Amino acid sequence: MSKFTLGEIAKKIKGRVKGDSNVIVTGVAGLEEAKNGDISFVANRRYYNRIASTKATAVIVGEDNGAIPDDKNYLVVENPYLSFLMTVELFYPQNSNFVPGIHSTVVIDPTAEIGERVYIGALVVVGAGSKIGNDVILQARSYVGERVVIDDNTRLMPGVIILDDVVIGKRCLFQSGCVLGSDGFGFVCDNNGIQQKIPQVSGLIIGDDVEIGANCTIDRGTLSPTHIGNGVKCDNLVHLAHNVEIGDNSLVVAQVGISGSTKIGKSVVLAGQAGIGGHLRIGDRVKVGAQAGVTKSVPEGMEISGYPARPHGEALRSQALLSRLPNVIQQIKDLLNRVNKLEEKK
Amino acid sequence: MSKFTLGEIAKKIKGRVKGDSNVIVTGVAGLEEAKNGDISFVANRRYYNRIASTKATAVIVGEDNGAIPDDKNYLVVENPYLSFLMTVELFYPQNSNFVPGIHSTVVIDPTAEIGERVYIGALVVVGAGSKIGNDVILQARSYVGERVVIDDNTRLMPGVIILDDVVIGKRCLFQSGCVLGSDGFGFVCDNNGIQQKIPQVSGLIIGDDVEIGANCTIDRGTLSPTHIGNGVKCDNLVHLAHNVEIGDNSLVVAQVGISGSTKIGKSVVLAGQAGIGGHLRIGDRVKVGAQAGVTKSVPEGMEISGYPARPHGEALRSQALLSRLPNVIQQIKDLLNRVNKLEEKK
Amino acid sequence: MSKFTLGEIAKKIKGRVKGDSNVIVTGVAGLEEAKNGDISFVANRRYYNRIASTKATAVIVGEDNGAIPDDKNYLVVENPYLSFLMTVELFYPQNSNFVPGIHSTVVIDPTAEIGERVYIGALVVVGAGSKIGNDVILQARSYVGERVVIDDNTRLMPGVIILDDVVIGKRCLFQSGCVLGSDGFGFVCDNNGIQQKIPQVSGLIIGDDVEIGANCTIDRGTLSPTHIGNGVKCDNLVHLAHNVEIGDNSLVVAQVGISGSTKIGKSVVLAGQAGIGGHLRIGDRVKVGAQAGVTKSVPEGMEISGYPARPHGEALRSQALLSRLPNVIQQIKDLLNRVNKLEEKK
Repeated sequence: MSKFTLGEIAKKIKGRVKGDSNVIVTGVAGLEEAKNGDISFVANRRYYNRIASTKATAVIVGEDNGAIPDDKNYLVVENPYLSFLMTVELFYPQNSNFVPGIHSTVVIDPTAEIGERVYIGALVVVGAGSKIGNDVILQARSYVGERVVIDDNTRLMPGVIILDDVVIGKRCLFQSGCVLGSDGFGFVCDNNGIQQKIPQVSGLIIGDDVEIGANCTIDRGTLSPTHIGNGVKCDNLVHLAHNVEIGDNSLVVAQVGISGSTKIGKSVVLAGQAGIGGHLRIGDRVKVGAQAGVTKSVPEGMEISGYPARPHGEALRSQALLSRLPNVIQQIKDLLNRVNKLEEKK
Repeated sequence: MSKFTLGEIAKKIKGRVKGDSNVIVTGVAGLEEAKNGDISFVANRRYYNRIASTKATAVIVGEDNGAIPDDKNYLVVENPYLSFLMTVELFYPQNSNFVPGIHSTVVIDPTAEIGERVYIGALVVVGAGSKIGNDVILQARSYVGERVVIDDNTRLMPGVIILDDVVIGKRCLFQSGCVLGSDGFGFVCDNNGIQQKIPQVSGLIIGDDVEIGANCTIDRGTLSPTHIGNGVKCDNLVHLAHNVEIGDNSLVVAQVGISGSTKIGKSVVLAGQAGIGGHLRIGDRVKVGAQAGVTKSVPEGMEISGYPARPHGEALRSQALLSRLPNVIQQIKDLLNRVNKLEEKK
Repeated sequence: MSKFTLGEIAKKIKGRVKGDSNVIVTGVAGLEEAKNGDISFVANRRYYNRIASTKATAVIVGEDNGAIPDDKNYLVVENPYLSFLMTVELFYPQNSNFVPGIHSTVVIDPTAEIGERVYIGALVVVGAGSKIGNDVILQARSYVGERVVIDDNTRLMPGVIILDDVVIGKRCLFQSGCVLGSDGFGFVCDNNGIQQKIPQVSGLIIGDDVEIGANCTIDRGTLSPTHIGNGVKCDNLVHLAHNVEIGDNSLVVAQVGISGSTKIGKSVVLAGQAGIGGHLRIGDRVKVGAQAGVTKSVPEGMEISGYPARPHGEALRSQALLSRLPNVIQQIKDLLNRVNKLEEKK
């Protein structure tokens, strides 16, 4: 495990020390879990009162830090959370422990092109005509099909499967067990009630800085490719059907499913287990609630939830009204009685 | 990439050329994406007006084609869509680029029987007593356990896992990462609150012409086998529990889950993310809506949706009424006021 | 296949023979599927009338067995179901067909420590610094990363992926394709709308007697580890996010998703496709219905269902009232008419 003085950390993350810059920091932790030697952080001044009881050796705080105890060591920064993330990276540098080299058990087709400083782990397969960029990491047991392109600094964790003709950008990260480029689900029922397969012959194009979670599945396109934009992040067990398009910087939370040919805009958030129907357009910056079932296109900027999904405020009102239903039914009974009496008196 | 004259394609898919039968076709594409050299199609006469602007070299159309422009080349057929699929197959013949042969890195038990013209890719494992039919394709890194039977012309894509005692028919296709024959989820809570495992000792039988999507899981049966009928197609990330039975030609869309011992009829469609409870019977030709939660058996031919699932028309009415609730509550308020006044006047 | 006399089985499962203890039993089956030679069981006296028509050679019954036919052979026990499970184990002893040994194709780092009587199948990878206990079974193509600890008698089925720093207890069973220790889904949106990854640097700790289903994904913790208690059982395709904690003996049914930092109590049951929000506390012995969407913490012992999840009785009442809505709306129309008439008469 690495260790740094607080002064060294300050230099690297561009912060200012308040306290002893020679103190030794040996790890990172949340405020409550921190022990002697750790550096922690407080992102919100509301929580400055928790600093007194932490065991952390140093705490990263923001500029407005008047109320913090004097007997601790601090790193003062503009954005404590982002600076803490940079500090975590210092202690756990991603990808750093992959010494470039190719394991003796790999099966690489002689026509594949492999870039410089590439790490290829045990039992990896790379098919004919594929191109692997520089500084790429293919961890053990990952599979790369034929005519695949993987650009610089992208990393496949153990057991990732990239099928033929998939094109992947720079600095992507693929979690274990995800499958990229499986056949889309396309069948035509013939006159005998038999489902005939529609050949799925196009590819899958993935931008830069994409992260795809464990055991996700992304299908290749039917006649034109499926597209995942730059900076898109998918959680685990997400399903993206053939010819889906996702705009830059959108987030897709665990177990979401997106049906065929739907176009998702930029900076969209799809919460866990939501389902999006086929051939829809979801505008930029739309937020879809957890478990929502989206059956229509959604204009940009909207927040929707429920099944079928509707504007979030409306969905909440429906739920609230539903809980008032017993009351409504009682009111009607009362009204009936009173009208009965009024009629009798006639 | 292959190329054909339009006349050659006409012969192979049994169509009639209208235009130049010597023109060279080099690819397939949708009408809008098509470029010079491509063949495309129009399945519905409503869209014949889009032909004028396509860049396709030739277009497949139906018999009722009076309104199409004269300056294009056509293939006239009975069913343009099915004929187009056949044309796609001409350009992208499935399974054709697997030259029979067994990679040097495979681990095949000496008691396994391997048929003729079989392709076995890198790092494939085949266990003791398994039988692999003729013309089977086991792509790289696929795993076949012990006493497995795989019949002729079936294909496992990279990374498929077939566990012990699974029996598979002819012409099936398994997408990457699917797991066939995992243990069912069966436990009995003993007197100490500890869940004791119910041994899952039976198998899994899969018919002919079945396709199973990426990262699906199908459990073996407890004491008698799980059954998947002929022509069943499963999309990605589908879960089929122990002792499920699915009738011929049913479609199971992505992320559907079917609980233990439920019997699904023939030609059923289960839309995405639907969940089917345990020990139910879903009749032939039933259609279950996306995200529906099926808690009761369903007679044949019904269309159901919602949670808990009910006849689709009824579910739609419930949703419509729910949106009228604010109105209903206002009406009751008005009634109350009017009855109050009536009572005062007495 | 093994065979036993009924007397031998009686001895092993501590039951009493009623009938011929020399009869030969060659298999186990349900009452209806049983054929000559099988032993079956009846767990509930209500079903004793089905014994007359079974083809089973022997039947396991409870002590209160007055009404059973005389011409069959029985094993009389306290708990017929648990005794039947023990009998199934006799015929299909789990893990017994793994002769200890290490396949010649494995890739095991020289710094890994391997216990005694371990089975390691074809193409298994074990990384640096990992410790494999005694009697562990690592089936073909399973992957164990660096610094992983796997305690005695645990079994990985083919294709399981255990990533770096995961710690696993005794007697666990991992079904094929599950991924343990993938990165959690943590990002911070910076000022440019770019999602910056929060490094996921902690581990995953799994207790004793845990079973994890096929293609499940369990994420490592961000700064402190994710925790799975003793005796927890997960069905297939379950997603457990970073820093989730699950108490002892809880059951998680297929396709459930649990969001980050949520703490699940002991002996909880989460039914299929349920989704649990982040940072919640679900009390001991809570039961969550299938497809429920849990948005708030739940006190111990409660049964909840629906979306958003509420007490199960209340959810059922809401559904019932919803089905009465058309009636309610008709009643209001009638009332309006009657009040109109009353007002006219004034």
